[in-house]
Amino acid sequence: MRPHTLPDPRFFHRSGPFPLSYIARHIAAEPPDDTSGSMMIDDIGSVETAGPGEITVFCDARYLDKFLTTRASATVTSHDLARHKSNRSGLLFVEDPRLAYAKIGHLFYPSSPLVPGVDSRALLDPTAVIGDGCQIDAGAVISAGVQVGARCHIGFHAVVGPGVVIGDDCVIGANTAVSHALIGDRVRIESCVTIGSQGFGFVPGPKGLLRMLQLGRVVIEDAVEIGANCAIDRGATGDTVIGAGTVIDNLVQIGHNVRIGQKSVLCGQVGIAGSTEIGDGVMIGGQSAISDHLVIGSGARIAGKSGVMRNVKPGEAVGGYPAVPIRQWHRQSSALSRLLRRKSNDG
Amino acid sequence: MRPHTLPDPRFFHRSGPFPLSYIARHIAAEPPDDTSGSMMIDDIGSVETAGPGEITVFCDARYLDKFLTTRASATVTSHDLARHKSNRSGLLFVEDPRLAYAKIGHLFYPSSPLVPGVDSRALLDPTAVIGDGCQIDAGAVISAGVQVGARCHIGFHAVVGPGVVIGDDCVIGANTAVSHALIGDRVRIESCVTIGSQGFGFVPGPKGLLRMLQLGRVVIEDAVEIGANCAIDRGATGDTVIGAGTVIDNLVQIGHNVRIGQKSVLCGQVGIAGSTEIGDGVMIGGQSAISDHLVIGSGARIAGKSGVMRNVKPGEAVGGYPAVPIRQWHRQSSALSRLLRRKSNDG
Amino acid sequence: MRPHTLPDPRFFHRSGPFPLSYIARHIAAEPPDDTSGSMMIDDIGSVETAGPGEITVFCDARYLDKFLTTRASATVTSHDLARHKSNRSGLLFVEDPRLAYAKIGHLFYPSSPLVPGVDSRALLDPTAVIGDGCQIDAGAVISAGVQVGARCHIGFHAVVGPGVVIGDDCVIGANTAVSHALIGDRVRIESCVTIGSQGFGFVPGPKGLLRMLQLGRVVIEDAVEIGANCAIDRGATGDTVIGAGTVIDNLVQIGHNVRIGQKSVLCGQVGIAGSTEIGDGVMIGGQSAISDHLVIGSGARIAGKSGVMRNVKPGEAVGGYPAVPIRQWHRQSSALSRLLRRKSNDG
Repeated sequence: MRPHTLPDPRFFHRSGPFPLSYIARHIAAEPPDDTSGSMMIDDIGSVETAGPGEITVFCDARYLDKFLTTRASATVTSHDLARHKSNRSGLLFVEDPRLAYAKIGHLFYPSSPLVPGVDSRALLDPTAVIGDGCQIDAGAVISAGVQVGARCHIGFHAVVGPGVVIGDDCVIGANTAVSHALIGDRVRIESCVTIGSQGFGFVPGPKGLLRMLQLGRVVIEDAVEIGANCAIDRGATGDTVIGAGTVIDNLVQIGHNVRIGQKSVLCGQVGIAGSTEIGDGVMIGGQSAISDHLVIGSGARIAGKSGVMRNVKPGEAVGGYPAVPIRQWHRQSSALSRLLRRKSNDG
Repeated sequence: MRPHTLPDPRFFHRSGPFPLSYIARHIAAEPPDDTSGSMMIDDIGSVETAGPGEITVFCDARYLDKFLTTRASATVTSHDLARHKSNRSGLLFVEDPRLAYAKIGHLFYPSSPLVPGVDSRALLDPTAVIGDGCQIDAGAVISAGVQVGARCHIGFHAVVGPGVVIGDDCVIGANTAVSHALIGDRVRIESCVTIGSQGFGFVPGPKGLLRMLQLGRVVIEDAVEIGANCAIDRGATGDTVIGAGTVIDNLVQIGHNVRIGQKSVLCGQVGIAGSTEIGDGVMIGGQSAISDHLVIGSGARIAGKSGVMRNVKPGEAVGGYPAVPIRQWHRQSSALSRLLRRKSNDG
Repeated sequence: MRPHTLPDPRFFHRSGPFPLSYIARHIAAEPPDDTSGSMMIDDIGSVETAGPGEITVFCDARYLDKFLTTRASATVTSHDLARHKSNRSGLLFVEDPRLAYAKIGHLFYPSSPLVPGVDSRALLDPTAVIGDGCQIDAGAVISAGVQVGARCHIGFHAVVGPGVVIGDDCVIGANTAVSHALIGDRVRIESCVTIGSQGFGFVPGPKGLLRMLQLGRVVIEDAVEIGANCAIDRGATGDTVIGAGTVIDNLVQIGHNVRIGQKSVLCGQVGIAGSTEIGDGVMIGGQSAISDHLVIGSGARIAGKSGVMRNVKPGEAVGGYPAVPIRQWHRQSSALSRLLRRKSNDG
């Protein structure tokens, strides 16, 4: 009996089977011996649960015992990790087993293929231009002047506002609203996301707060992924920019004129206030907030739930509220505990 | 004149009137005397504003004065609370007056009845199975292979993805998107919620971050309630699980493979990072964050806005960031204040 | 070549040109001299990038150098700021240049005009009443008994529940769901917002948590602006109230029976727990949380990411978690640093 942790066929469709030699080529592994190479592999599985006909991964020395006793027919690993295994049949050697296994996963469980066409219940403005092979679901709104590249999937009830440009191979999730945006290739946006909303800037006047004009755009570069229920404001003057390859988790707030570099990672419920610049490869932990008009250098790491109120240097790691260098933050927490113990002794 | 705090008939439809004896039976109260029992009650109201023909509740000794002077015809209370009242006419005695009064509220103001049927503008895949008595609103999308139980309400533009299973007596709010999910009975999901989105896990590669396959599901057990604009990711391998009777407020983020037990309470804007396990009857205050791969024991209490970075024992109460036992957190705050006073004296 | 920071004509449509004298009247500036007054102005621009035919603003003495060398044909400023400029041609003098410039911005870039009419794919209940000049987009749902004032824009797939009242000149964003609400004039609500959801109050019972009846409303007064992906619960008994002119950023959570005064400012991801009262002109920084049943006085200022657990007096400024007077919070942070240095010296 397959344990329930294996993919539910109601939701995931398996491809294959593939000969091990095919899988080896797919991940640029050293070719397996001839016997192994012709073996048919029909699924992936964890090192504990995978059985005959399945391939698993061994990428963490702590699980050596499990690797040595796995029932899987094949294992992706590295020469170094597998050095204790005498029988090397069925092993695929790569430099980065974790990355290779992720690629094998996508081979066995590819994204659902698009069903090209524009549903008759979608709302397609006659001036919009749709690329080849797109799937436009019912209720989707493609407004005047919109350009959509090839092989995009625009989900149910997604609303794409006037003039928006979307590149190739993008996914816009169901019930998402996008306006004032230029979107690159391979961008994936989840459900219930708002992109291009007005920035939050006001001038106080005698009758109340007057919203400052928000005349900028949202520029989303290639291969950006944006999680569910995020909100990304357009620039006031100039653009809000999300750099290529940056990934954003759910419920994240990006203020107007924020500029994020490439391959940065923003975890769930992060908030970035207006005009802050974030470099490349920055890691921002969940629920962190970064104040407005700051500069966060490339490679910086911001611990979860931090409140960043000053610039962060490239490569610097900070934590706490207000955020300080991460070692100082850990020392502060310890110092507070010691202070309490001393007080108790005094008391 | 009825004060404006009473239910607005544009939004709420009152049932009744009911004889007091009927109400008594409904809440399993001791039967009232015959004169009281035949009295007709036509609405509920607060102890201060309720008048003749109305029923109120007295469940907190601090409001004794108001109870002694209430104009309400009937009051739900307990023997202990009402011991100072000499005239016991119109009193209904129960062990838990607050719970009883909540039940009376639902008696007088039942949920709007369903209008069974599938709107012609809903999108119903021919392979979907819909139970008896369901109301499927216009724009709702019921995808291939979906199973919906009896007496469900699928709101306007709600999108139910392929293969999703929904039990009996569920409500899926307007503009909500559900995929990769198995949902029990009596589950209520508000508007603009995303369920089943991809988890946030990536492997760094030479071309950027490659998303790890997210081949799990979201399992939502019976009687779960999920607030507006929440995001719940599906598991990577295995499931994200929300246990029976757990209630979740608005704008909450649940990461992949999180497992929550039964009858836990998650307040607004809480975030739970991937693979964390939360027991039964856990209370999590608003805006708290819990790191990934932790275990929070049953009956634990986490103060609002805490940042939990370690396991929490069953029944333990913690607060602060990083979260510590709640008493220690209060002492830390006090110690900081004292430290400042001493500094001022030194200075 | 125009720098890319100027408005993208795909998204923004410029009005004008206007003679400078017309602009002066629009902002109630002192009339310019005759030569300047007849000059045609065709766009706005920053003090650095604006050129001939354009108008800019000088409202901050730090940018004096840029003002003295601007190529703009006209500048909005004040007598005091401009006192170092000998050639006063093309200057418009007002008391508040920033506010005046915001007004000029709206003159040149007015909101897109409505396209009045009810789209044939909107769902309009026959008992709903729609004012003159409204634009009701496809997929919008206007339920039984709804009243919509004049010149409103109800976006694609917005769901307006039974009995909701909306005033004049309102905007309800795409994919937003509104129920149990009375909305004033000039209210603007962004996309993917939920208004009128059930409050988060439960009574524990033998079978689990029973939700307390939520029989109140959401009352949104005139000129309120609500950002994307917010969630505002209706009252339990009585109303949740957002006072006139209050502005709310994205992803904000407002609990049941919260009452917010006039012209307050709630930044992104703020959370207000049930029954808390917030006065007029209160500023609440991003990601702050305010506990339930508190009173925050008018003019109070709450720093970003604060956790407010006690009442705040009118005009008081607080910060931190738990929030304390802002000076004390800054001293706490400094004291912690000093404590660490002393420890290091000891060590």
